[in-house]
Amino acid sequence: MERVPGSFGTSVSFALRIFQLGFSSTSLISMCLDYDFNELSGGCNAYVILWSILHTLADTYSVLLKQLPQKPRVLSIVLAGDVVLSFLSLSGACGAASATEMLLSIDEPMCGDKRCIKYQVSALLAFLCWALFLDSAIFNLWSLYSLFH
Amino acid sequence: MERVPGSFGTSVSFALRIFQLGFSSTSLISMCLDYDFNELSGGCNAYVILWSILHTLADTYSVLLKQLPQKPRVLSIVLAGDVVLSFLSLSGACGAASATEMLLSIDEPMCGDKRCIKYQVSALLAFLCWALFLDSAIFNLWSLYSLFH
Repeated sequence: MERVPGSFGTSVSFALRIFQLGFSSTSLISMCLDYDFNELSGGCNAYVILWSILHTLADTYSVLLKQLPQKPRVLSIVLAGDVVLSFLSLSGACGAASATEMLLSIDEPMCGDKRCIKYQVSALLAFLCWALFLDSAIFNLWSLYSLFH
Repeated sequence: MERVPGSFGTSVSFALRIFQLGFSSTSLISMCLDYDFNELSGGCNAYVILWSILHTLADTYSVLLKQLPQKPRVLSIVLAGDVVLSFLSLSGACGAASATEMLLSIDEPMCGDKRCIKYQVSALLAFLCWALFLDSAIFNLWSLYSLFH
């Protein structure tokens, strides 16, 4: 059976997971380093990082050592996780973006010292992370569909 | 072919759309009436209301007059719309909730006069709307799957 590029265990999926890991950790670090800013967003990012690490390991194993089999049950779990985490990262990104915009619009002194720009970058990275999760989910859905046809 | 309850053109779907319409319009009204608060959330809600009205009409026609056929192409469009609008309503809800929490935490004078409670209710309704859209999307995905099996 031909594998759908980007689905679980392929090299495209490995690349997607690496980017997800990079974006989510940079977003978390830039948000948490100097101020206890947005707990929602931080919490979401932590789950995203855990899930990405798990998948990066699985994909590395599958790409470098031995191709993992694509079973419907495994693909369904991966798909469900991707969908849930795409919702989580979108909610974190929107929360961070909205709170930052609100702070900027009311001229809070908290926003001085380029702090708010840092938060905006963090929200942007979380949005990118969401887009990558959506890609992973679509590829895995496609792969799951092609398993039955 | 037996129809999946909740999929396009059934009475459960009609009920879901009615609730989506109710929640999204109440959310929009409570947010927009007295202050030009959150454009993101307002814009998202407007699309949600349009989509819900369209589907309520289609479902009313299907339930009361003549059962509409469930074609794969129609179901795919409905499914795609539901997924996109569930993301939109989630982002609106998170944006509104996060901005309101931020205003409450920094003791903005803008939050007096029970305005922030109104915004919180509005965000809650938008979350409920997101949950209903997710239900619709899952039912339609199930229905689309069962069309091929």
